[in-house]
Amino acid sequence: MTEAAKNVKAPRTAITPTRAENFPEWYQNVIKAADMAENAPVRGCMIIKPYGYAVWENIQGNLDRMIKAEEVQNAYFPLLIPLSFIAKEAEHIEGFAKECAVVTHHRLESDGKGGLVPAGPLTEPMIIRPTSETIIGEAFSRWVQSYRDLPLKTNQWANVMRWEMRPRIFLRTSEFLWQEGHNVFETHDDAEKDALRMIEVYREFYENYMAVPGFIGAKTPDERFPGAIETYTIEAFMQDGKALQGCTSHNLGQTFAKSSDIKFLDRDGVQKLAWTTSWGLSTRTIGGLIMVHADDDGMVMPPKLAPYQVGILPIIHDEADKPKIMEFCDKIRKELLAKGVSARIDKSGQRTSDMMWGAIKKGVPVRLEIGAREIAEGQLTYTRRDLGKDGKKKVSVDEFLGSIEGVLAQMQKDMLERARQRMQGMVIEIKTLKEMRDFFAAEKIGGVKIDYKLIQDSDEFEAIKKEFSVTPRCLPFADNGQKVIVAKAY
Amino acid sequence: MTEAAKNVKAPRTAITPTRAENFPEWYQNVIKAADMAENAPVRGCMIIKPYGYAVWENIQGNLDRMIKAEEVQNAYFPLLIPLSFIAKEAEHIEGFAKECAVVTHHRLESDGKGGLVPAGPLTEPMIIRPTSETIIGEAFSRWVQSYRDLPLKTNQWANVMRWEMRPRIFLRTSEFLWQEGHNVFETHDDAEKDALRMIEVYREFYENYMAVPGFIGAKTPDERFPGAIETYTIEAFMQDGKALQGCTSHNLGQTFAKSSDIKFLDRDGVQKLAWTTSWGLSTRTIGGLIMVHADDDGMVMPPKLAPYQVGILPIIHDEADKPKIMEFCDKIRKELLAKGVSARIDKSGQRTSDMMWGAIKKGVPVRLEIGAREIAEGQLTYTRRDLGKDGKKKVSVDEFLGSIEGVLAQMQKDMLERARQRMQGMVIEIKTLKEMRDFFAAEKIGGVKIDYKLIQDSDEFEAIKKEFSVTPRCLPFADNGQKVIVAKAY
Repeated sequence: MTEAAKNVKAPRTAITPTRAENFPEWYQNVIKAADMAENAPVRGCMIIKPYGYAVWENIQGNLDRMIKAEEVQNAYFPLLIPLSFIAKEAEHIEGFAKECAVVTHHRLESDGKGGLVPAGPLTEPMIIRPTSETIIGEAFSRWVQSYRDLPLKTNQWANVMRWEMRPRIFLRTSEFLWQEGHNVFETHDDAEKDALRMIEVYREFYENYMAVPGFIGAKTPDERFPGAIETYTIEAFMQDGKALQGCTSHNLGQTFAKSSDIKFLDRDGVQKLAWTTSWGLSTRTIGGLIMVHADDDGMVMPPKLAPYQVGILPIIHDEADKPKIMEFCDKIRKELLAKGVSARIDKSGQRTSDMMWGAIKKGVPVRLEIGAREIAEGQLTYTRRDLGKDGKKKVSVDEFLGSIEGVLAQMQKDMLERARQRMQGMVIEIKTLKEMRDFFAAEKIGGVKIDYKLIQDSDEFEAIKKEFSVTPRCLPFADNGQKVIVAKAY
Repeated sequence: MTEAAKNVKAPRTAITPTRAENFPEWYQNVIKAADMAENAPVRGCMIIKPYGYAVWENIQGNLDRMIKAEEVQNAYFPLLIPLSFIAKEAEHIEGFAKECAVVTHHRLESDGKGGLVPAGPLTEPMIIRPTSETIIGEAFSRWVQSYRDLPLKTNQWANVMRWEMRPRIFLRTSEFLWQEGHNVFETHDDAEKDALRMIEVYREFYENYMAVPGFIGAKTPDERFPGAIETYTIEAFMQDGKALQGCTSHNLGQTFAKSSDIKFLDRDGVQKLAWTTSWGLSTRTIGGLIMVHADDDGMVMPPKLAPYQVGILPIIHDEADKPKIMEFCDKIRKELLAKGVSARIDKSGQRTSDMMWGAIKKGVPVRLEIGAREIAEGQLTYTRRDLGKDGKKKVSVDEFLGSIEGVLAQMQKDMLERARQRMQGMVIEIKTLKEMRDFFAAEKIGGVKIDYKLIQDSDEFEAIKKEFSVTPRCLPFADNGQKVIVAKAY
């Protein structure tokens, strides 16, 4: 070993740089180390790898059940939207025109030089849906005829496309996966109640499954979805103090009912314009999950969304012990499965420390080490991922099997509580715009909460927004819409 | 009533025209009457309505579990494929160039006359995936480095696009939903074994869930997937005697490994080209489900894929009875649910006959009528959809609840058996091309089976193909690849 090599210190953490050193790079490296996703060779798009996709499947499965409990039915609408549809609603098209993929041809033909060129020009160009209000609105205008057809509640799980100029894996990708719900009602009040109900469903999902708390409230007018009369949001705070809009629920008023002509014959024999809502949660949410929970050793999965909850690591010092150890591991795996606890045995044959660090970087909630000694003693060593070294315990096999569900539930609860405490410390209440300027000028981590009236029509606030790249995130329900949170955001 | 009106006979069937009168129109009307899907305002695309989408969700849920049991992992790859990727494999691009949606721009801008035009031309056009071998191959070339990385088994649930010139709902739509599996192996034999295994998984799914049997076998060379060295297929026969390729499994040999450069370092230290397979099942399969099972009164759902298995019809003659009846219906619904039987109460308030016909047209496996008399007597009347009037039975409440799972299982079994008998009668074995010509000239329903050698390099067979629009469907495994089935096909 050269003198120089000796002086290179081993990294203290599995992920370098750390959060404190370089948050954006740490984020990319957590995803890479956990093998969740990678950038695709298609500009701005990503490939969601099996371990990352399994998280999305768990999000889908649980959220889908909650959505269906709201008497919403799933359906599927076309990927392509004719230009004339999207152009119907002026504010809406303005919001999406600058970032949409346009299909102009329907075949390829030889260019005579061995290459291929687009051919068969379409009479009307189409765009790949950036969101589906206009194409679904057309269907609703046919499906809704009478008050008897209302409420109409429909959701779709789909891919959408918004041409991102500054793509960032999970957070901003040109193509992403999401669910988009589209509901139709008789009255403004029904629509408003629904928009509020769906943000509440999201809150429950965020807290109970993702273990991610957020400030729940209304967007200020400038930050609303293009065409909405109200946009409700969950603003979660990442570990670097920036906000992330986790998901949104919009009261669209009669904007899209008007442009799509969604009318119903009411009880009084009068034809009336309907009221609509839309609400969505996307793969972006996985970016938030990472930035809230991961640490300098990699991902930390909340047990309810983990691809597998227990990582079983067979510790083989002597090849002769292998069959016995693997058999025992499989027995434990099956007993866990019978309790509804998902588990995976590491069969890679790697060294113990490599298996251990692999599980740590992937954020497997509980690691379980099983070797010849453990079998002989009838004692198992397990470690909770979120507690580091403090999470290590040695217990009897029965004790482990009897307590694992509780251990996972406690970890889920602790993760939420830890994130909540962190979030609360990140937003400080201030009284003046001067304090706001000082806060951001000092590059403090987090955001501020201030009387909403103070930022309305304020030139000073506009100046602060521009200078520090901050935006009003939401008017929290908890403050009755009187106060606004201002922060940097993803 | 006018004299003319009196002479108009009430239709004898819920669907007109009947299968015998006009099969293609009957097919469209079954879908409409069951409210499963409709043509979209986007050329060649469809909207899958909630009742149809629920069938797809059941297909997905069950098939996904079977795929995962094969140790395949789900992932997600980009929608858009750069032209240079798809052009890598000559045979492949030739197969898809004539029917692909081409994205050429990434935004819209004002044309100065109040309209919008495509802007921001892409340096390289992209096509919306018609299938993903080339884009997934690029990822695999990075993921696969060593024999230790193999086998690599990956599946995605996605939308794909093939610009259809003669679209037909579910059967041929420009956009459709599917799963596409892509596996990589060390050897030709491993790939071949996998392609055969996956067509066997599909066979199990087709028979056990869809209650649709088929001829399973290899495609003749001309009918293979572009780039495959073997394509295995399930050829199901519809009630009009035409074949439908239900799903396919391809041994791609080294075609895509070569064009995508998927190589691995083998145990002997030599770098070798991998072997790949791909296999897919799409929403097209729902078209087959309809054309195999529906009758002149509408859809007949196999219980295992039915959106709900029991349709509860509250029979209310006296409004005063309504609360009691609805409460009883809900009690039954919950008891069914506890047994894992899905049920839906018709709350439309329609007349009994309208509710009944609604359930018939939707193909609800079992209808259950509950009125004041039924409650008083403790007797329920239920009807199996597939048996018509013969399917009606009156039993005690306990007897109904005790037997419903058996009734549904028997219906599932009977539907498969009926379809199998019909299919077997539809393909007759012949000895000469003269007999083949006579069969198709006589416009007989179904197809023929003949010695495969007789159609190879035969001018007479080429003439028959052209004259009667028939094609070789497959070389059934049951005949050891010695015989070929020839028929018209969807």
